[in-house]
Amino acid sequence: MTEPRFPTPLPTLEPAAYTLSDLVGVRCAGVAAGIKASGRPDVALLVADAPLAVAGVFTRNRYAAAPVEVCRAQLEKSSGRVRAIVVNSGNANACTGEGGLADAWAMARRVARLVGCPEEQVLVSSTGVIGRRLPMERVLAGIDAAHASLEAGSEAGRRFLAAIMTTDAFPKEASAELTASAAGLRVAGVCKGAGMIEPDMATMLAYVGTDLALEPEALRRALPRIASRSFNGVHVDGHASTNDSFLLFSTGAKRVDASAEAAAFAAVERVARRLAWLIARDGEGASKVTTIEVRGARSDEAALSMARAVAHSALVRTALFGNDPNWGRFVSQVGNSPELGDARALRCALDGVVVFERGEPVVFDAAELSRRMASTDDLVLRFELGDGTGEASVMTSDLGYRYVEVNAEYTT
Amino acid sequence: MTEPRFPTPLPTLEPAAYTLSDLVGVRCAGVAAGIKASGRPDVALLVADAPLAVAGVFTRNRYAAAPVEVCRAQLEKSSGRVRAIVVNSGNANACTGEGGLADAWAMARRVARLVGCPEEQVLVSSTGVIGRRLPMERVLAGIDAAHASLEAGSEAGRRFLAAIMTTDAFPKEASAELTASAAGLRVAGVCKGAGMIEPDMATMLAYVGTDLALEPEALRRALPRIASRSFNGVHVDGHASTNDSFLLFSTGAKRVDASAEAAAFAAVERVARRLAWLIARDGEGASKVTTIEVRGARSDEAALSMARAVAHSALVRTALFGNDPNWGRFVSQVGNSPELGDARALRCALDGVVVFERGEPVVFDAAELSRRMASTDDLVLRFELGDGTGEASVMTSDLGYRYVEVNAEYTT
Repeated sequence: MTEPRFPTPLPTLEPAAYTLSDLVGVRCAGVAAGIKASGRPDVALLVADAPLAVAGVFTRNRYAAAPVEVCRAQLEKSSGRVRAIVVNSGNANACTGEGGLADAWAMARRVARLVGCPEEQVLVSSTGVIGRRLPMERVLAGIDAAHASLEAGSEAGRRFLAAIMTTDAFPKEASAELTASAAGLRVAGVCKGAGMIEPDMATMLAYVGTDLALEPEALRRALPRIASRSFNGVHVDGHASTNDSFLLFSTGAKRVDASAEAAAFAAVERVARRLAWLIARDGEGASKVTTIEVRGARSDEAALSMARAVAHSALVRTALFGNDPNWGRFVSQVGNSPELGDARALRCALDGVVVFERGEPVVFDAAELSRRMASTDDLVLRFELGDGTGEASVMTSDLGYRYVEVNAEYTT
Repeated sequence: MTEPRFPTPLPTLEPAAYTLSDLVGVRCAGVAAGIKASGRPDVALLVADAPLAVAGVFTRNRYAAAPVEVCRAQLEKSSGRVRAIVVNSGNANACTGEGGLADAWAMARRVARLVGCPEEQVLVSSTGVIGRRLPMERVLAGIDAAHASLEAGSEAGRRFLAAIMTTDAFPKEASAELTASAAGLRVAGVCKGAGMIEPDMATMLAYVGTDLALEPEALRRALPRIASRSFNGVHVDGHASTNDSFLLFSTGAKRVDASAEAAAFAAVERVARRLAWLIARDGEGASKVTTIEVRGARSDEAALSMARAVAHSALVRTALFGNDPNWGRFVSQVGNSPELGDARALRCALDGVVVFERGEPVVFDAAELSRRMASTDDLVLRFELGDGTGEASVMTSDLGYRYVEVNAEYTT
């Protein structure tokens, strides 16, 4: 892409204290295999000394990519016990038919041979251009090179992260270390994803690991809640890509009292939520992340459907970009929902300032609120209803000139 | 608003052969009453010599404006027999509470007194800023002036049209005259509406009339189908404004054989559909209207939900703006739908060129198709499914820099 006409200031990010290869027995690598024309890193490999317990959630898109099909099959066959995860960027291996499926299996086989593990203990992800076959010679050579350079420690994890990125404007990582009852227990995660840019479908790939000893079954049980409070709560474009994958794994290295498990899961959720926030922050040209909270709905489902309607609205998103406390657009989306019960009970607050109440706008200092919108990249738009106890929260990014530039001008 | 940074070329429009005041016994007026700061016309009045048969569909938004509530009550009370329609632009009289409702009733009463008809025979519409009370002194003086200048003929109808416009980039009118069995029978319509611009909620107001003699009950029966194939098929932003109204009326002047009624209704539908197309064409900064057709779905509802998902997608709309035949974005929306049955049966064609078939992209000349997209303002994106006989069609406008400019920078 040429120089952007509408560059966007990036957020200030602290590096995470730990990455995936800071977990016990985990080594990572990231190499440039020539899949990307840019020459940037594009093959990432994670290998564990002992089988990891793994659970995954994947795209619901009916045109799920070949690697997603492979992951589903492998997790089933291996009962969630996995030694390695291989990822390529630059090509999504999606909409590639039977040939593409064979390519994804070939990636898993190559890794299994190098690692010396059963084939079903290897998971595969891809992200990048869709509708084109992988350059398999380069991919396999890249896997060999990645395997030869596997290392433990933070730097290796960052090379893994660099090799999964596509149109990301910045790397996305997060970590947590528990104190008290589970002192020293680590959670680390990396992800890639932004808005959906063609020809890359802006796949979201996320890998979160912990040393907390957990069986695959416990991970599978915990995953839906963690996913719904993090990655499934990001609504930038309403598209689920063909390749979206979120893998949660445990090295099994640290056993803790049952009493500490809740704290450990809370830490995993925090890490996943932070990663999801970073994806929303990287919406093309986004100046801020807005968390849409709906409370007091008939049900959680009703709340979610209203929150999504607000988050998807191009009108709401352009108002947020313009730092315009535009209660008309916000409230109109909720007012259009068949899930809204008592319309007069609706209260809408932006950054804590009530802008609409009892069916009418409230007098507020619009200029001051606009200034507050402009000075933060983490905004909360809250709707309080009088219909029940259902609640939901989703994150969206605003929509500005840069969004149009990348999505209209970066063409096939 | 200041000079746009991203001006959009307007479409070439032929004036309609007839307007509302070319119908038998209908007079129109449009005057500047000072509601709009710009000094442009803002009070429109239509008066019929004899009661019109009228049916209406209105916004489903729970924060429906005061004039919408008045219209619903009047149509009920008058059994769909109406002498006058009064419209103001520049102020939507929405979210204005009990006081706003009293204002809307006062407008109806003033017209009834001037026309000399029962109060329930007057309908009221408003469009413009929401959340502010009407300047009633100016509104009532404007009604008096409009009544004093009522005239028949095309020019008066165009003054009516000018006075209902708000952010419209061009006037929207359409007409049809029947030949053969109902020779000379006229259908005329005007409307206003574009994307949703704050503080104006971009209300859609449409008035379509015919000389075909029809009872209110026949109009009510025909209205849902006509609305769903025209105005309800426009999906620019997914917002239903607080004021959206579509009134269909008959002067009752011309009786025709039952055999000619179908042709007359088809002409009404054509006029309504053309008006709806003009609204989609006037999406802020839109360069074209894209009609999304879905065929072969499980049901009409399933088809509609998929067509809407495509039409609402900011990613699809930016690709259309960029003249990018981006099958990945198009197909992904349908692939995400829980309504999709046989994913392998999906076929997607843009402007008649098949771009996706049997789960995989098709080789096509992207540069040539892009040139074709750039050279038309009336594009068809068709999805053929293998699930049944359900079908739907909606219109959307593309999303470019100008959309962001008006929606982000035209702030409160």
